[in-house]
Amino acid sequence: MTGMPTSGMNVLALAGGVGGAKLADGLAHLLGERLTVAGNTGDDFEHLGFSISPDLDTVMYTLAGIANPELGWGIAGETWSFMEQVERLGGPVWFRLGDRDIATHALRTSRLRSGESLTAVTADLCRALGISARVVPMTDDRVRTMLETEDGPLAFQDYFVRLKCAVAVRSILFEGAEQANPNPALMAMRGEAAPQAIVICPSNPYLSIDPILAVPGLRDFIRETPAPVVAVSPIVAGAAIKGPAAKLMAELGHTVSAATVAEHYRGLVDALLIDEADAPLAEDIERMGMKPVVASTVMRSRADRITLAGLCLKVAQDLA
Amino acid sequence: MTGMPTSGMNVLALAGGVGGAKLADGLAHLLGERLTVAGNTGDDFEHLGFSISPDLDTVMYTLAGIANPELGWGIAGETWSFMEQVERLGGPVWFRLGDRDIATHALRTSRLRSGESLTAVTADLCRALGISARVVPMTDDRVRTMLETEDGPLAFQDYFVRLKCAVAVRSILFEGAEQANPNPALMAMRGEAAPQAIVICPSNPYLSIDPILAVPGLRDFIRETPAPVVAVSPIVAGAAIKGPAAKLMAELGHTVSAATVAEHYRGLVDALLIDEADAPLAEDIERMGMKPVVASTVMRSRADRITLAGLCLKVAQDLA
Repeated sequence: MTGMPTSGMNVLALAGGVGGAKLADGLAHLLGERLTVAGNTGDDFEHLGFSISPDLDTVMYTLAGIANPELGWGIAGETWSFMEQVERLGGPVWFRLGDRDIATHALRTSRLRSGESLTAVTADLCRALGISARVVPMTDDRVRTMLETEDGPLAFQDYFVRLKCAVAVRSILFEGAEQANPNPALMAMRGEAAPQAIVICPSNPYLSIDPILAVPGLRDFIRETPAPVVAVSPIVAGAAIKGPAAKLMAELGHTVSAATVAEHYRGLVDALLIDEADAPLAEDIERMGMKPVVASTVMRSRADRITLAGLCLKVAQDLA
Repeated sequence: MTGMPTSGMNVLALAGGVGGAKLADGLAHLLGERLTVAGNTGDDFEHLGFSISPDLDTVMYTLAGIANPELGWGIAGETWSFMEQVERLGGPVWFRLGDRDIATHALRTSRLRSGESLTAVTADLCRALGISARVVPMTDDRVRTMLETEDGPLAFQDYFVRLKCAVAVRSILFEGAEQANPNPALMAMRGEAAPQAIVICPSNPYLSIDPILAVPGLRDFIRETPAPVVAVSPIVAGAAIKGPAAKLMAELGHTVSAATVAEHYRGLVDALLIDEADAPLAEDIERMGMKPVVASTVMRSRADRITLAGLCLKVAQDLA
């Protein structure tokens, strides 16, 4: 991105899984170690004895360039001997763990169990994978996204993976969030290490960004920061690029629209990037007190990620 | 083994890893569910967050016909993606875990952590692998084989795998053995379910059989049982077929000989099978109060395992 005026810019990005990770990858390309990615740990869970952090891992694998492009999760060139044997042994197979992926989970699990923090483990994993951006969990404490559904309460992965989101959600709860301490590395960014921009990546607002904002201190940090806050809508032309954001939006009683994303982030975000397909919504969004920016937001290639990241930074700089 | 008079015979076998597992496999072929294998858990350990039971697993994989013939441990047709990724992530690689093998460790670890016993987990794993013999750990309590070496104390796997036995051992300790409860399934065999024979497989006497005998009650059970006790020497022609038995024997100040095995099992064993190469030792062994049986004891094929197992049972029946 020649000519992109990003030198010296420190940026904080909030990201969930796939879509968020793609924009984070574009930002990481432009900013390197000047990028901090706050990752969602609300969908972390324990399975087969492993402590699994799906969203952090997707960010990590994407930034390391080893993400599995076919699956949208896990590692490229994965093998599946472990799962085959688990099945043979009569173990649970609804949540698939690749052989390479398990290296992450095993190292993390054993270190967490010995008392290390998720932040420290994630930093070391990122270093080993050659990632220069800083990837930090929103908190080192336990937060669990729970869904109140038509069939009763469900843990996130039960809803998301086991049931493939095929139940209607009535409300969402971030268990443990109220008691959680925000990641000190994030809170330290309120002071002299303050970012020049905050980017809310095109992740699910309800399941990926809200858990981050539910950790005490983080929403206020973003609301009160003097830095411009730029979000990218994960809803394009009334649909989600990936995942249950649109379905959830409807179930929660909202119109499936980038305007609903704007409404959701009202008071927090200074500019919202919406897709060209949603250009007619620009006026509505402007009325909500944020700057609408119409762009091509669907990231099909690595170049798309970098272009969109560059635009986010430019929008932030124009707002500053 | 046509004509082998084993019907109705219940047998208890004591076995460590490779050599012991091979004879256990021969016995299992002849006896099916009438065989109980008491496995050594002294070399169990925790690694990368997994609870690993190397000897139990070798017995289990061997009886299931899925043992890796090249390595002498692990599963045949194994893949190694996990280890490759652990290495990439800078994790420890001195103890190699195959992708399929990890299914065993993960299922065991998560179930142990939820409060289930190693006995229950092992039984379910065996069932899933189609094993009809009963494989039971010597105890469900924690026993850890420790080696006092010229370089100080070492945990078993540090000595055996990491250092490849390349330090001299002065003494061996079974940490926790005194406080351990013998497996109730084994102690129950003192009563009406009493075996008609006990077979001590050709495993390392110091590292595989002694830990089993160190669990309170088990040595007395074997010493006091009315059933004949038949052992097979793991030392053939002054050398061990596999593993550090011979090296250890010398370091502990003994002649490396099947006669030393006889001396070690004196008072416990009624008959000792020694290899044809050791036929000249028969008289010495007889003088120690046990019956020497000269046979071809090296198991190169599955047929060899079955033949040797059949001979053990015949020797026991002749002694009864």
